[in-house]
Amino acid sequence: MRKVTIIGAGLVGSLLATYLGKRGIKVDLYERRGDMRKEQVDAGRSINLACSTRGWKALNGVGLEEEVKEAAIAMHGRMMHSISGDLTFQPYGKEGEAIYSISRAHLNKILLDEVEKNSKIHFDHKCIDLDLENATVTFQNEQTKQQTSCTSDIIFGADGAFSAVRETMRKKLRFNYQQQYIEHGYKELTIPPTTDGEWALEKNFLHIWPRKQYMLIALPNTDGSFTCTLFLAFRGEKSFENLQTPQQVSKFFEESFPDIIPLAPNLLDEFFANPTSGLVTISCSPWQYQEKIALIGDAAHAIVPFYGQGMVSGFEDVRILNDLLDEFPNQSILQKYTNARQENGDAIAALALQNFIEMRDLVGDPSFLLRKRIEARIQNLYPGKYIPLYSMVTFSHLPYKEALSVGKKQKKMLDEILQISNIENIWQTEKFLEIIHKFITVYQNDVFVRK
Amino acid sequence: MRKVTIIGAGLVGSLLATYLGKRGIKVDLYERRGDMRKEQVDAGRSINLACSTRGWKALNGVGLEEEVKEAAIAMHGRMMHSISGDLTFQPYGKEGEAIYSISRAHLNKILLDEVEKNSKIHFDHKCIDLDLENATVTFQNEQTKQQTSCTSDIIFGADGAFSAVRETMRKKLRFNYQQQYIEHGYKELTIPPTTDGEWALEKNFLHIWPRKQYMLIALPNTDGSFTCTLFLAFRGEKSFENLQTPQQVSKFFEESFPDIIPLAPNLLDEFFANPTSGLVTISCSPWQYQEKIALIGDAAHAIVPFYGQGMVSGFEDVRILNDLLDEFPNQSILQKYTNARQENGDAIAALALQNFIEMRDLVGDPSFLLRKRIEARIQNLYPGKYIPLYSMVTFSHLPYKEALSVGKKQKKMLDEILQISNIENIWQTEKFLEIIHKFITVYQNDVFVRK
Repeated sequence: MRKVTIIGAGLVGSLLATYLGKRGIKVDLYERRGDMRKEQVDAGRSINLACSTRGWKALNGVGLEEEVKEAAIAMHGRMMHSISGDLTFQPYGKEGEAIYSISRAHLNKILLDEVEKNSKIHFDHKCIDLDLENATVTFQNEQTKQQTSCTSDIIFGADGAFSAVRETMRKKLRFNYQQQYIEHGYKELTIPPTTDGEWALEKNFLHIWPRKQYMLIALPNTDGSFTCTLFLAFRGEKSFENLQTPQQVSKFFEESFPDIIPLAPNLLDEFFANPTSGLVTISCSPWQYQEKIALIGDAAHAIVPFYGQGMVSGFEDVRILNDLLDEFPNQSILQKYTNARQENGDAIAALALQNFIEMRDLVGDPSFLLRKRIEARIQNLYPGKYIPLYSMVTFSHLPYKEALSVGKKQKKMLDEILQISNIENIWQTEKFLEIIHKFITVYQNDVFVRK
Repeated sequence: MRKVTIIGAGLVGSLLATYLGKRGIKVDLYERRGDMRKEQVDAGRSINLACSTRGWKALNGVGLEEEVKEAAIAMHGRMMHSISGDLTFQPYGKEGEAIYSISRAHLNKILLDEVEKNSKIHFDHKCIDLDLENATVTFQNEQTKQQTSCTSDIIFGADGAFSAVRETMRKKLRFNYQQQYIEHGYKELTIPPTTDGEWALEKNFLHIWPRKQYMLIALPNTDGSFTCTLFLAFRGEKSFENLQTPQQVSKFFEESFPDIIPLAPNLLDEFFANPTSGLVTISCSPWQYQEKIALIGDAAHAIVPFYGQGMVSGFEDVRILNDLLDEFPNQSILQKYTNARQENGDAIAALALQNFIEMRDLVGDPSFLLRKRIEARIQNLYPGKYIPLYSMVTFSHLPYKEALSVGKKQKKMLDEILQISNIENIWQTEKFLEIIHKFITVYQNDVFVRK
C-alpha cells in the first residue's frame, strides 16, 4: 500500500487519511463539497454528535485526543424529563465515565488540518466513475467541470451512507446490500443560551424527553446552546404527518414537552424551516474487492443514531485497519480488515436499533431504572468481569459482536432477577448479595466478558 | 386510470399492457431494446422457462392460453439422473398435472403482437429520468438519441430485476430494499437434437442431475434440443473458479454428469463461450407511490429460478391487478394491489430459495422420494383438502403466503411420520391408513388448505 485514494473528507475519511499519511503512505483525499474551513458548507447533517471510548482511542493514535477533548462537553448520564417536569438522572457508567458532545464541523476541521500536514486534499471533486478492476477513479471538479482520473494501489470509499463507491460495487459485483428505514424521522431544533450566555438546561447531561412512541433529546454545545432532536413517526396519530400547522405543532409540544417551550423561542420557525429526515440502516457485503477497493465508516455500515456510535464505529474501523498494517506489514490487509469488522458492523447496527426502544420508552419506566441500579451493583461486585451492555459498547474496546451476544445473556439474567418478589425493596440488602452470587454462579460464563 | 405508461416490454410488461389495453385504457409500452420480432435481440436471459397453473390463468384472461400452450412442452415430473446413469421418476402432481417448458422469445412475441391490437409499443426507448411526484418519465431514443417526456395517470415499472423505476424509488423515497446473491451461479449449455431430429432424452420431463452441492437440469425445446443449466458455486472445491481449462471442465463433467457427454458435443465450446451469471433475490417496499407509480414482476420481486415461478408470479401480479380494477372500478387500486401482493412476493422468494436445496440434494435421496409418495397418498385420501406444498405453489391459485405457512406444518407432520419404524415397508398397507388418520386428526387445521 504505497499510493492510496480516499473518497470522502468527512470524519472517517479524514481520520483514515491522517493515519495513513503518518505512515508515509502517499494519500490523496477527495471531497465532493468545498473546504468547510473556508466556506459555510451546509452538510445537511447533525450539528453535534457523541464521542466515547472507542473514538478517543482512535484519535489518540494520531495524537489528537487532547485537542478534541478540549472542545467537547462531558455528559455523565441521561437526564430524563417527565411531562410534569420531573427530572430523573441515570448515569451512563461508573463514576468518572462519560460520553462527550462534540461539534461535527469543529472536529472535521481539526482533522482536515491534520491531514494536510502529510497529504493533499482535493475539494469540490465529485466521484463520477470508478473502475473497480484497475482501482481507477474519475472525478469531476465541481467548479471547473474538468475531469481527472486517478489510479492507486487502494481506493477507500469513506463517502458516507449514500456512498458512490458502494453504489458502483452494488451495481457491478455480486454484492449483497440492504437499506432499511425505520418508521421514525427526525428534526433538529435549538435551545439557545440564556440571556446570561449560559446553558438553559443542566450542561453535563444528555437530556431525554421519553414519550414511548417518540422522544426529544438535547445535547449541549460549547456556545451555551443545546441542539435538540425530535424523533417521531412519519405517519400515524402522533406523527410528522399530523404536524402541518403552527397550531398543531404548538399543541403537540404543549402536551408532550411543555418544559422546553419557554426555552426554545424559535421553535415554530425552526420546525417549519428545518428538514424532516429519515433514519436508515445500511448493511452490505463484501466490504472489499480484490484488495483494491474498500468501504469504511458509514459507507460500509450506516446505522441509526441511538447508541451514539455512528462516528465512533467508523473511527474504530480506521484504528483496526491501522493495527492490521502494523501486524502484517507486507501483506494485503483489506480482506483481513473486512473479516475483523463486518460482523461488528452488523452488531452495532442491531444494537443501535435496540437502543431506540430503550431511549424513547424504557428510560421513563421505574422498573428499567431499578434494573440499571441492580446491574451497577453487580458490576461493582465483579469488577472487570461483569460489564453492562451499555458500558461494553460505550466504555470498552470489546468487539461489538461480543457486546451484543453477552448483552443478550445479561438481559435474560436480569429478567429473572427482576421477577424476584419484593425485589424493589431487597436489592440493596446484604441478603441480596447471596442471590446475586447464585445467579452469577449459574450464568457467569455467559454474562462475563471474555478476557 | 385512463392513461398508463408501462416501462419494459418483457413478459410481464407485455401481459400488463394487453390486459389494460383490452379494458380500453390508453397504454404506452416502452422498451429499451429493439423489437425482438424484427431483429435478433440478445436478451442475455434464459432461453426457456416454466409455465404452470397461475401462468395459464393469467394468459387465459386475455384469451392467449391455447395459443401459448400449443407452443409449450408438458413436463410431467422430474427425471433424476444418478452418476451411474440410473433414472428415477418423480411426478410433479396428480395424474395429468404438468408444468410446461416454453420459449421465452416465442411467448414474448405472441404477447407483443397482442399488445399492438390496442396499444402502442415504443422500442429502443431507454428510461433516463423519472419524476415520481408528477408521474413523468423521460426516455431517450437509443437510435436517434432524441429525448421525449411522457406524463400519465400511472407509470408501471415492469423493467425487471435491475429496474430503473425501482432505482429511482430507492434513491428518492424512504425505500426499503434488499439484494442478496446466493453462492451459486449458472451457465447455460445445449443438448442438440439427435441426427434424426428427435429429443436426445425423454421429452416430457424436467431432467435433473442432482449432486448435492450443485446440479445440472435440462428443459425440452420444441426444436428437439434441450437447454441445460449448470448451477454451481462460484468458489470452493467444486466451483466455476476451479473450471478454468478444458481439461478441468472435461474431468468435472466426466465425474459428475458422464451421461450427458455423448449428448452434448459442443459442451466445451459452449462452456467457455457462455457467460456465468449470478442468482439474486431482490425484495423491496413500498411497491407503489402515491397511486402514481407501481412496480410489477421482477422489478418488485426478483427471485431465484428454482421453483419455476419467476414469470408465473409476475403474471399473477397482473391478473390480481386486473381483478382489483374489476372490483373497485372507480377507486385507486395501487395500494390495494401492493397489499394483496407484497407478502406473496416475499413468500415465493423464500420458497424458491428452499427449492434449490430440494432439487440439488433431496431429490437424489430415497427417503425424500418415499416422503413424496406418502404425501401423494395422503393427498388422495383427502382430496382438495391436503395439497402438497409443491402442488399448492404450482397447481393452485392459493396465495404463496398461505402455501409457505401450510407447507411448514406439512413438513413437520411428514417429519414425524417418517420417524415411524419400518415406515418404508408399511406405508402402502391398509394399517397405515389408521396412522395417517391419527396424524390428520391432530394436524388437519394446520396442514389442510383453507377454503
